[in-house]
Amino acid sequence: MKVFEIQGGFGFDYLSAAERPRPEPGHGEVLLRMKAASINFRDILMVRGHYNPRQPLPLIPLSDGVGEVVAVGEGVSRVEVGDRVATVFCQRWRSGVPDKAKLRSTLGGPLDGTLAEYMVLWEGGVVKVPEHLSDIEAATLPCAALTAWSALVTEGDIGAGDTVLVQGTGGVSLFALQFAQALGARVIVTSSSAAKLETAHKLGSWQEINYVDDPKWAKTVKEMTDGVGVDHVVEVGGAGTLQQSLSAVRIGGQISLIGVLAGSSIELNILPILMHRIRVQGILVGSREGFETMNRGIAQHEIRPVVDRVFPFEEAREAFVYMAGGRHMGKICISFD
Amino acid sequence: MKVFEIQGGFGFDYLSAAERPRPEPGHGEVLLRMKAASINFRDILMVRGHYNPRQPLPLIPLSDGVGEVVAVGEGVSRVEVGDRVATVFCQRWRSGVPDKAKLRSTLGGPLDGTLAEYMVLWEGGVVKVPEHLSDIEAATLPCAALTAWSALVTEGDIGAGDTVLVQGTGGVSLFALQFAQALGARVIVTSSSAAKLETAHKLGSWQEINYVDDPKWAKTVKEMTDGVGVDHVVEVGGAGTLQQSLSAVRIGGQISLIGVLAGSSIELNILPILMHRIRVQGILVGSREGFETMNRGIAQHEIRPVVDRVFPFEEAREAFVYMAGGRHMGKICISFD
Amino acid sequence: MKVFEIQGGFGFDYLSAAERPRPEPGHGEVLLRMKAASINFRDILMVRGHYNPRQPLPLIPLSDGVGEVVAVGEGVSRVEVGDRVATVFCQRWRSGVPDKAKLRSTLGGPLDGTLAEYMVLWEGGVVKVPEHLSDIEAATLPCAALTAWSALVTEGDIGAGDTVLVQGTGGVSLFALQFAQALGARVIVTSSSAAKLETAHKLGSWQEINYVDDPKWAKTVKEMTDGVGVDHVVEVGGAGTLQQSLSAVRIGGQISLIGVLAGSSIELNILPILMHRIRVQGILVGSREGFETMNRGIAQHEIRPVVDRVFPFEEAREAFVYMAGGRHMGKICISFD
Amino acid sequence: MKVFEIQGGFGFDYLSAAERPRPEPGHGEVLLRMKAASINFRDILMVRGHYNPRQPLPLIPLSDGVGEVVAVGEGVSRVEVGDRVATVFCQRWRSGVPDKAKLRSTLGGPLDGTLAEYMVLWEGGVVKVPEHLSDIEAATLPCAALTAWSALVTEGDIGAGDTVLVQGTGGVSLFALQFAQALGARVIVTSSSAAKLETAHKLGSWQEINYVDDPKWAKTVKEMTDGVGVDHVVEVGGAGTLQQSLSAVRIGGQISLIGVLAGSSIELNILPILMHRIRVQGILVGSREGFETMNRGIAQHEIRPVVDRVFPFEEAREAFVYMAGGRHMGKICISFD
Repeated sequence: MKVFEIQGGFGFDYLSAAERPRPEPGHGEVLLRMKAASINFRDILMVRGHYNPRQPLPLIPLSDGVGEVVAVGEGVSRVEVGDRVATVFCQRWRSGVPDKAKLRSTLGGPLDGTLAEYMVLWEGGVVKVPEHLSDIEAATLPCAALTAWSALVTEGDIGAGDTVLVQGTGGVSLFALQFAQALGARVIVTSSSAAKLETAHKLGSWQEINYVDDPKWAKTVKEMTDGVGVDHVVEVGGAGTLQQSLSAVRIGGQISLIGVLAGSSIELNILPILMHRIRVQGILVGSREGFETMNRGIAQHEIRPVVDRVFPFEEAREAFVYMAGGRHMGKICISFD
Repeated sequence: MKVFEIQGGFGFDYLSAAERPRPEPGHGEVLLRMKAASINFRDILMVRGHYNPRQPLPLIPLSDGVGEVVAVGEGVSRVEVGDRVATVFCQRWRSGVPDKAKLRSTLGGPLDGTLAEYMVLWEGGVVKVPEHLSDIEAATLPCAALTAWSALVTEGDIGAGDTVLVQGTGGVSLFALQFAQALGARVIVTSSSAAKLETAHKLGSWQEINYVDDPKWAKTVKEMTDGVGVDHVVEVGGAGTLQQSLSAVRIGGQISLIGVLAGSSIELNILPILMHRIRVQGILVGSREGFETMNRGIAQHEIRPVVDRVFPFEEAREAFVYMAGGRHMGKICISFD
Repeated sequence: MKVFEIQGGFGFDYLSAAERPRPEPGHGEVLLRMKAASINFRDILMVRGHYNPRQPLPLIPLSDGVGEVVAVGEGVSRVEVGDRVATVFCQRWRSGVPDKAKLRSTLGGPLDGTLAEYMVLWEGGVVKVPEHLSDIEAATLPCAALTAWSALVTEGDIGAGDTVLVQGTGGVSLFALQFAQALGARVIVTSSSAAKLETAHKLGSWQEINYVDDPKWAKTVKEMTDGVGVDHVVEVGGAGTLQQSLSAVRIGGQISLIGVLAGSSIELNILPILMHRIRVQGILVGSREGFETMNRGIAQHEIRPVVDRVFPFEEAREAFVYMAGGRHMGKICISFD
Repeated sequence: MKVFEIQGGFGFDYLSAAERPRPEPGHGEVLLRMKAASINFRDILMVRGHYNPRQPLPLIPLSDGVGEVVAVGEGVSRVEVGDRVATVFCQRWRSGVPDKAKLRSTLGGPLDGTLAEYMVLWEGGVVKVPEHLSDIEAATLPCAALTAWSALVTEGDIGAGDTVLVQGTGGVSLFALQFAQALGARVIVTSSSAAKLETAHKLGSWQEINYVDDPKWAKTVKEMTDGVGVDHVVEVGGAGTLQQSLSAVRIGGQISLIGVLAGSSIELNILPILMHRIRVQGILVGSREGFETMNRGIAQHEIRPVVDRVFPFEEAREAFVYMAGGRHMGKICISFD
């Protein structure tokens, strides 16, 4: 079977097509014929060797994908041949709080990922996907959507009438925008691009802030919320934005720390956390149970992921390069058909 | 009646005895004859002008006290003449999440505090205290005990078998040690003083760490917990300790940010929050409902606060100076009898 | 001012117009000029003397209403003259769990109710209403809507993808249908009327069951849910339906016991509660905090209450008679204009 | 290996010793050499054919036991040879809410149980036991202790200062008494035996009621709690006691329905559930996660189960007969040594 793998070193140049024997499902395992995959920022870091420089190679990258079950091993009961399933990012994290061993069972590194024509996974490492979604759409869910869901629902308890600040228009942020709205919350979106803000508005955001024009956006957020601040911040900027987020959130509010796009080391004044009783909650994708709950929500609210562009399998490297360029809005996917 | 007030400027030199007319309770108000008070670190900051340099003067300091209800205004139904009650730090915060207005209704600044022979409060601004406590002991509860309770119980959900790291042996920390134990948790205490660690051990701590001898204490905490880390950190050091606390807490664990004794600005690597799904929860004392719940717990578990030293009312200034010296272990109180 | 009161005995014949002096707001109180009111089944029981035969008379009936604040007493800060507010059913229940005293502070008995041109209430006994609602619509919220909200949200934690069984098409049931849908749940409605089921379907129900044609409806519910059962039952029938509800709910599901329209004494087999780990949760309207949270949800989801018919104030008695007839679908209201 | 099995029919006469081949652990399975077992009321019903008359025979009875891991199959990682583990009653219920399939995976029927010298279980169907307990003591935990824990902690949220009513002095009730106390709650115990009440008092109960002398015990409970009622009732009587429990619990309180010793069909007035916002929560033992959490609690609070009597393996039938006699107080166990 054909795969893409990182081989011989890190960097996009070392990502290339290769041939591997088609795997066979063992006890409790399933064989998937892959239909679609999607790329996350983590995958870019992984290929470049920035996520884990000690990752053994070769490695098949990507954690997110959708496939059809084409064979099952002995003792399999959760799925059947013919089911359409998505991969679970963290294979062994079923529910609740994970431990170290579970957090290491992630696809696309250290475990081989979804950029392969076939893959074998533990039967508990896949979930059925909502029927109204195409294969491409469903392939966007495992990381980006689940991260947004974990922040707002599993760990966030967002409710009708709340106000949520979503930073940017990346994959997680757009899902956060869509979920928050479906749950009855108002969403403020920040971006540096007028065009992206316009698209966010079409997707239903309540207010938009261009942080280039308005670098003190936390102040604007406060004004938009009658001086109170937002209930929840979906924080993807990290070092570059956390201090302002601490100003933009209301007393007793929550900042879900999801990404550190703008760095992970920061000179921070932590006094507001204490004085305003703020909760800073780290979010790391989520459990399979969360994935299944989210899928029910996506189905019932008929939410459709925003897909920016689809690349054929053969052009997988181009997809990485395009993603790294940062001009996209929504998910970048790969089709196996 | 006699009071102490900050008058003419900030600093211990400006804290002096004064005479004020005895107040009368209005509609919905109660008059307390004060029996005991206690000092918190916040009070030291307040007298020195470091808490709020724009605080109007004169101000009667201290938020914590116990008094006897000696008169009630019209419409009072929560308490009766003869009741022994403690003051509620944040007078208008009844339950749930506070707002800005509630957070400004605090005693000992901006509102006049407990260092007075009599005081008038809204009937909802006092709570009855556990019977097994002396007046002195009960006067230690409003801030220090409630802060520890809010961290571990209201916002922390500590349970039997959990492991809690308590930094130091100040007022909040000792209450956290006592509460955590009563709830069935194991407690690790850090301190720079061998004598204080010995006392902590007598109070029931499971492990003690002298952070002067062992500056990389987070590593030791990891070893004590079989590489897992603690479930909860009661963080009082702030900038000086938060980075190590992020290493000492387990995946999915909580750091209750309570104090910033070692500074509020910090060069912080926030990546562990994200990668280990850590919750950093700011704690700001707590609500009246939390106070009442805590009192039932203190009564049932027959917990007795640790009192370091009691000063007579006339020597209140000496009490502040002694507290500022930092040699105490447990609460410093003032007796009106 | 004009009022209606129960005077001289119980029964609709004893409900008549009367004149009372317009009240003045005291300390912490507000004066409302009433705009609209609505009737609940409890009010019918009250007038007939079935709710509390020892209720002292005269009594102004009805708990639900909307008015304009036209004067405020000393010390009022929560509302201002000109605000449009609804009455809180249980005047003293602010949040959390109520006690006996709070449960006795209900309007329309034992306290005088909303069927009066003016009324004076404690400032904490009113809440502002969503702007998109007319006075008539807003007057339907205090009991029926809040009961449905408490069942599904405050005590029920309904989420996207859940299935909810709603019995009948009375006031609470229609709100339950609308709220459940907004929260992303699928709703099964039961009724004895084909016409009402059709209306329910137009309001968005997923499945409808006519329990006259299908007296073993629990079996049908099981089939509709692939043998699993529903997540939540909004139980208004009481003795007449509870046994079947215990069959219709899934393992670990919840039955919110809201009404006992078909009797309160029942020969019940309680084994399913135990064997299927079912929660039977009594619901009694809800707190002011719940009311405020619900209003944010109603505003954000732009939910509009279903109003069956509006009677002018002068014909209030006819409204009661019409309600007792049981042919309505949605709320019966009274207009003061 | 030697086992006891129900063979040829139901009733104690059909419980007899037999010989079976020693099983071998397959993929993901472990082999236990049993050290101790304990009997629950469910086991009596099972042997008598009252629990499930269609249960296929032969069946090895008993769900509760402790054994040493003496061999492990391929792919086992949760336990090692030499570990001392208890059996999980519901083998496939890991955490959260169970489904029908999980509820059928129970030991001692339909699956073979612990009354055998050796048994093979899925590795996820055992948990390590607290070190301070003897084998006999640890064998009492799987059903009785976990049921009490689920009622008070997992589903009950009991806290310090709460008051809990425990009916009788059976296995679940005594664990409930011990857990409630450890959590800081006050316990009222009811029994028909003065001797048992005295023993309960020695175990730490706060108040005792002999319901033979005081058949209107709910009224007494109300008086003991200043007219308020208890926060939580551990209901084991079912039909015989539920109505009084509804009177004995406070507004907003919980009744955990655990047993139906006095029947499952009842003429019940359900109005108090509604009017007092009571929660009736069915409890069915609990999940493996609950078991592990409970074990941490038992270890930390150093709780020791109350064992009434230990029978040698050969006299297992006598143990059933003794249990059915109902004179015991605490658990009846079987030793394999």
